[in-house]
Amino acid sequence: LADMEGKQNHGAERQHKAEGLLKELRILKDKVENLEDQKLEYEKKLKATKAEISSLQQLLLCKNAEIESLHTQLLARPSLAAESS
Amino acid sequence: LADMEGKQNHGAERQHKAEGLLKELRILKDKVENLEDQKLEYEKKLKATKAEISSLQQLLLCKNAEIESLHTQLLARPSLAAESS
Repeated sequence: LADMEGKQNHGAERQHKAEGLLKELRILKDKVENLEDQKLEYEKKLKATKAEISSLQQLLLCKNAEIESLHTQLLARPSLAAESS
Repeated sequence: LADMEGKQNHGAERQHKAEGLLKELRILKDKVENLEDQKLEYEKKLKATKAEISSLQQLLLCKNAEIESLHTQLLARPSLAAESS
């Protein structure tokens, strides 16, 4: 009888351990899901910032072209005094 | 004897299930570690792109200031022909 009780306790212990493992599994699965959602968010943000960089670089090219044009116009005009540009 | 064998099989089955759970746990823990490493990488990249945006915006401010200055200089100089600027 004592032996049967021992086996029963052993079985109950293993049941608890299995439940503990299942609980840990659920926690980890939630964590994975959460991290994967965060990853998607990061990917979106990164894509948006790269698009903004590209746009700013384009704008800079325009500004540089405008500056060159203005320099050219300045050179074409007589200066007020003899000055080196 | 058959009953003891039954109990032994039941115990072996639970052992296999527990090993299966442990294996699944290890896989998930690896996945979590991998996702957390990726998250750190994303954070670094995002920080770098934000710094680049800030730098480009500063550069644009300088360019705009330069353009304004050139416009002012142009206005101060006599034009070759009577033209509206």
